[in-house]
Amino acid sequence: MTPDAAMRTREPLPLTAVTIDDRFWTPRRELIRTRTLRQQERQMRRPGQQFDALTLTWRPGDPHEPHIFWESDVAKWIEAASHCLATADDPDLDRAVDEAIELLAGAQQDDGYLNVYFTVVKPGQRFTDLRDAHELYCAGHLIEAGVAHFEATGKTRLLDIVRRYADLIDTVFSPDGPCAGGYDGHQEIELALVKLYRATGERRYLDLSRRLIEWRGQQPYYFELEFQRRGTPGYFGTTLPRRPEATRRFREYNQSHQPVADQAEVVGHSVRAMYMYSAMTDLADEYGDDRLLQAVQRLWANLTTKKLYITGGMGSDPSIEGFGPAYDLPDAHGYAETCASIGLVQWAQRMSNLTGHGHYIDTLERALYNGVLSGASADGTHYFYGNPLASGGTVARQEWFDCACCPPNLARLISELGRYVYAQGPNEAVINLYVAGTGRFTLTGGEVTLRQDTRYPREGHLAVTVTPAGDEAEFTLAIRIPGWSRQPAITVNGEPVHQPILRDGYLTLSRRWRAGDLVEIDLGLEVRRTWAHPAVASAAGKVALERGPVVFCLEGVDHDGAVHNLALPRDVPIRAVPDERTGVVTLHADATADTTAGDQLYVSHSPGRRSTALTAVPYFSWANRGLSDMTVWIRDG
Amino acid sequence: MTPDAAMRTREPLPLTAVTIDDRFWTPRRELIRTRTLRQQERQMRRPGQQFDALTLTWRPGDPHEPHIFWESDVAKWIEAASHCLATADDPDLDRAVDEAIELLAGAQQDDGYLNVYFTVVKPGQRFTDLRDAHELYCAGHLIEAGVAHFEATGKTRLLDIVRRYADLIDTVFSPDGPCAGGYDGHQEIELALVKLYRATGERRYLDLSRRLIEWRGQQPYYFELEFQRRGTPGYFGTTLPRRPEATRRFREYNQSHQPVADQAEVVGHSVRAMYMYSAMTDLADEYGDDRLLQAVQRLWANLTTKKLYITGGMGSDPSIEGFGPAYDLPDAHGYAETCASIGLVQWAQRMSNLTGHGHYIDTLERALYNGVLSGASADGTHYFYGNPLASGGTVARQEWFDCACCPPNLARLISELGRYVYAQGPNEAVINLYVAGTGRFTLTGGEVTLRQDTRYPREGHLAVTVTPAGDEAEFTLAIRIPGWSRQPAITVNGEPVHQPILRDGYLTLSRRWRAGDLVEIDLGLEVRRTWAHPAVASAAGKVALERGPVVFCLEGVDHDGAVHNLALPRDVPIRAVPDERTGVVTLHADATADTTAGDQLYVSHSPGRRSTALTAVPYFSWANRGLSDMTVWIRDG
Repeated sequence: MTPDAAMRTREPLPLTAVTIDDRFWTPRRELIRTRTLRQQERQMRRPGQQFDALTLTWRPGDPHEPHIFWESDVAKWIEAASHCLATADDPDLDRAVDEAIELLAGAQQDDGYLNVYFTVVKPGQRFTDLRDAHELYCAGHLIEAGVAHFEATGKTRLLDIVRRYADLIDTVFSPDGPCAGGYDGHQEIELALVKLYRATGERRYLDLSRRLIEWRGQQPYYFELEFQRRGTPGYFGTTLPRRPEATRRFREYNQSHQPVADQAEVVGHSVRAMYMYSAMTDLADEYGDDRLLQAVQRLWANLTTKKLYITGGMGSDPSIEGFGPAYDLPDAHGYAETCASIGLVQWAQRMSNLTGHGHYIDTLERALYNGVLSGASADGTHYFYGNPLASGGTVARQEWFDCACCPPNLARLISELGRYVYAQGPNEAVINLYVAGTGRFTLTGGEVTLRQDTRYPREGHLAVTVTPAGDEAEFTLAIRIPGWSRQPAITVNGEPVHQPILRDGYLTLSRRWRAGDLVEIDLGLEVRRTWAHPAVASAAGKVALERGPVVFCLEGVDHDGAVHNLALPRDVPIRAVPDERTGVVTLHADATADTTAGDQLYVSHSPGRRSTALTAVPYFSWANRGLSDMTVWIRDG
Repeated sequence: MTPDAAMRTREPLPLTAVTIDDRFWTPRRELIRTRTLRQQERQMRRPGQQFDALTLTWRPGDPHEPHIFWESDVAKWIEAASHCLATADDPDLDRAVDEAIELLAGAQQDDGYLNVYFTVVKPGQRFTDLRDAHELYCAGHLIEAGVAHFEATGKTRLLDIVRRYADLIDTVFSPDGPCAGGYDGHQEIELALVKLYRATGERRYLDLSRRLIEWRGQQPYYFELEFQRRGTPGYFGTTLPRRPEATRRFREYNQSHQPVADQAEVVGHSVRAMYMYSAMTDLADEYGDDRLLQAVQRLWANLTTKKLYITGGMGSDPSIEGFGPAYDLPDAHGYAETCASIGLVQWAQRMSNLTGHGHYIDTLERALYNGVLSGASADGTHYFYGNPLASGGTVARQEWFDCACCPPNLARLISELGRYVYAQGPNEAVINLYVAGTGRFTLTGGEVTLRQDTRYPREGHLAVTVTPAGDEAEFTLAIRIPGWSRQPAITVNGEPVHQPILRDGYLTLSRRWRAGDLVEIDLGLEVRRTWAHPAVASAAGKVALERGPVVFCLEGVDHDGAVHNLALPRDVPIRAVPDERTGVVTLHADATADTTAGDQLYVSHSPGRRSTALTAVPYFSWANRGLSDMTVWIRDG
């Protein structure tokens, strides 16, 4: 199904080829399946909410006008549930998914169209407000759900529904169709169409995706034409700003300010950006398009050297849910939407598989273990939309949002984790993430199963057992070595490997493997002090603590005073202590704290200092013990 | 005209009794009169703006629907211009003011009503949306303008207009009137009515003010009753929130969450708060109301020990233009509206005159020389609405705002400065602010003129020459000694005063004064390092620089690197250097700065340090040299 031009060096294993049996991840994934997805279903089943809307019974004047992007919530929920069903036997969930799919089937129009808002609220206005109305965005999530449900269960019901809808869109957005030159204000369908192409082999879905990407940002400007044709402001109630600089900013918001392949700076709404860059990477791959490849490499460098929080969060400007200027990474007053970190995980995997470089996975881990995981509470039923790096003690996760994009998005990523653990090249089995369990590879050298045993991220030791389908198989085993691992200790069958081949961030072992061959790696999980570039104001004079992929933070609940008053001397040792029950590691050190004298707000004497014990907890675990202040960046020295 | 119960110890001198001939203030005041007021008039004369609206020619469907509080902009502009006319001969300005007054006269209805919005946009809906529609707020500013114009020029045209409107309001809000129990969502008229009472001697204006203050926050809750009567959401489109905690927060927004005299914490919209506390102080004074006095003293203590920026700015939460929790004073992401600092100046003066305490004037100076003055550009034509304590270099003053409350408010305060310099008690002449010029006092001991010679705030020396109307006069001369002045050196006619009487923050000299008697004070203007209470996160590990009443900041334009990377060692001396042309003092010290190595965003080695020269400029002067980053709080040590 892949055109000859395809560039990629590797592709993910399908979910059905991966098992996960991991102390860190398995409880979190079970929580998603048994609790989170149920809680989300209940939210969407409330009267007047998502499921009701799909019955198309709403009439003007009724309460609960269907929201423009409610399908996307349902779709992400179906996709998450499908990922679960790929490896878990869960008849209740299977039934709930089928029910939701039947609701979608009932909402589909005769010509394949499937969008509640433009069916019952604004009939006759399909595809006239692409800039604001999220129509193709919803379609994209439906398509992803259809592909995921098919791949997990083999059922074609939803896949057929979304193919009919995609066929309609393909016609409307054909080069001589009524929306030629158009594209959605919120990118998403572009990457979904690549998935649909890969699942069905229908090349026209891929070509449609490419058209939407190539049309974006061209002149004449589509959203201006659309506005003139429509004659009324878009859903968000604003006309296009007239002043040149406002126009530029408005167009940057949805990355339509210039042709996509020319873009060099990550700007605008962060989730839109991540989804678009993911699609661009897919299309660079499928078409062997070097200009797109260079574009995503430029954008990646810009993101990771100028605009990424240490937690893998991004999009520091709440007013646009998106990127600020370079190095503008405020802590308490930033944004860092959970969905953006999820999008980064998706994009990083594509970049790594396309180029074969492991450093993309370093960033993937940064996002996954920090900015993504922090998005849900320990009990899996409350969510952050923004993930700030500091808090004055007033921030708590919520049960649901009016715009509930993050909760099901997080559920689908964690339930799809299996696709991120491994990758395979023609005769290469790749381990990207340290997750206990197995991956089954189909290589030119034969079928091979790798078993990982590890207590990562609590410990840095990894044991990989190789089991070829036959007695032996000749292939390359590539195991990612994170950039922070300075001196990994490596053995094969107990023999130290003194001069390991480390290429592009991977330990590369090419040999004839026999059943039971054992590779062991000790990454050396030291606590690391990390400093930000001096241009980052919120981190000036401060230090962060990391261990493996986990970023730590201080919470007020562990200290008898405000965490911003704690300072960590440069020379004190930091002890990592795992909790034996949960496996979660906390850090401990001797520190100092400002002391309070009197209740004057401003005084002419410097604050006193006292010795105190500092406790740092993983960022992903914060805000699970009641309201408490928090900071990732700790005063240094 | 003062009821017997009046509590106050002092009152301001009228503007016409004060001259200002001051190196710091005179150029700024001339700029207001010759440039700022003209620029503001041009803004309000644009088609479809304030002046047009007053013609009442707008009809539904026309562009430029009159804004609900445009009268207040015009009124503040008239008030500012009137203050100028009190001491300056400016026929052009006089004519422009008369023209604006005639527009107001033309907009007044037969029954005295005067509000464009409810005359042409929502006729028949007067006084039905007190919570949101700013109707009495606008009336209050009109009343203040009428009083100021009368006092400055002796003309009664505008005073007569606003008296007719106040008479109508008095009827509508009488205890058996249609709006009995009601009050405006934006306080302002309460303090205006006290001024109207003092100007006219009509006690019913004072009683109306007291009713509005006493009804506020009582049960049943007026805005709920009003909402039920009206049956539609208010101007701001929201119904009253139903959830208990949201209701509380919503009511706090306009300080109607509990009876005014019971309030103990400054909450909600900061400008509303300052205006209300000012009115409460006036009423405590006029009625000898001890409960109100205790309330404003509690609120003052809460503000100044928990919620006031070092610049005299306040209201740290942009989402409500108001107060956050105690100690929540973010620097780059705060708010600190210019109008709130102006309101604090007004309130502080009232507190000082009521109680005779000088520390209120310390806070007045803090606001005046910092958070107020920063509100306008050096050329007097661009304005800040919010006055942040740090900036990443993206903040600039603007020419105008859709909600243009701050620009004319700042103009009226600076042009009214004369009322803040002096105060008089029965036989006491008080100097509150060091401003070169004269004040003419009418004391029981006779008429006395004081002349101040000073280059404050550039220098800390003050010379006061006493000139009784006759040969001599026996009275008390009280000169405020700021709290930061540790060892003021005092002489009378060249003789050192070794054991000065310092009472309630004033140097108190009671004697028989002869013409030419000379009091000299040297306050000792040392540069001060100031630290915030450790609970203030944005100032943790940081220090601010002050000298006299002036707070300093670092601007990027003076440094070859980001200002957040500068650190000021504890032990280095700080030199104060005045600019000979402008008189503006800058501070200079040896400091260190982080150095950049490479373009990685996160690294495992601490930043290097280099020696550098630190330059601090007055906060009020920042953002006058192009876009530049800025910080008030400097890394300490």
